[in-house]
Amino acid sequence: MEKIEHIGIAVKDLAVSNLIFEKLFGAPAYKSEEVESEGVATSFFKSGPNKIELLAATSLDSPIAKFIDKKGEGIHHIAFAVEDIVSEIARLQKEGFVVLNEIPKKGADNKLVAFLHPKSTNGVLIELCQEIK
Amino acid sequence: MEKIEHIGIAVKDLAVSNLIFEKLFGAPAYKSEEVESEGVATSFFKSGPNKIELLAATSLDSPIAKFIDKKGEGIHHIAFAVEDIVSEIARLQKEGFVVLNEIPKKGADNKLVAFLHPKSTNGVLIELCQEIK
Repeated sequence: MEKIEHIGIAVKDLAVSNLIFEKLFGAPAYKSEEVESEGVATSFFKSGPNKIELLAATSLDSPIAKFIDKKGEGIHHIAFAVEDIVSEIARLQKEGFVVLNEIPKKGADNKLVAFLHPKSTNGVLIELCQEIK
Repeated sequence: MEKIEHIGIAVKDLAVSNLIFEKLFGAPAYKSEEVESEGVATSFFKSGPNKIELLAATSLDSPIAKFIDKKGEGIHHIAFAVEDIVSEIARLQKEGFVVLNEIPKKGADNKLVAFLHPKSTNGVLIELCQEIK
């Protein structure tokens, strides 16, 4: 866990929320990207060594659509940067955490990602992410 | 907004959650602190340049007790480090954000803090914090 890589925030309308976060940070999103396999459109803002990732659903069965239906807009997950995602998954499983995908998958922003089930982490959806070199 | 200073996570039982986050980070909380005026007991973990702050209620009318009653345990707020909290509050008010306390107040961890209303920030409770020098 080298740092908070990013915080993911679920939003209804990416264009509207881009404007809000542009005002907040005093600078526009530096990147937008669609992850078709996850049914999301994303945009990224920088805050020093950290990022904010806005996530909007691109399909009705997107996890983000389901999240917003249930909880409304807001913080969706925290992502921590790790050096070696495979060994980190093994370490956390040994510690009793429930890993949602044991085999890391390709996420946004050139990352391999895995998620920990919120039931094992105080209700917080935690993402591990490793830069793809 | 220099960086994510910390993420605040609402928990029911600080001792139980300290163990969970100790396993997650592979290191124990480096600090515990009670903020009587806010009705919270806190503990802090490091993740590189960032921190995780666990927050447990110490009274029934604590904002954390109310949050958990309504939403359950989970992420409560994101705090961004700012150099000059007074000028940042003025800038954000001008941009249309709703500042919950216009006059910064003393928070945990030797900080002056102010909060933005989640209604103006996509459902995200945002804290600005400035180190007290």
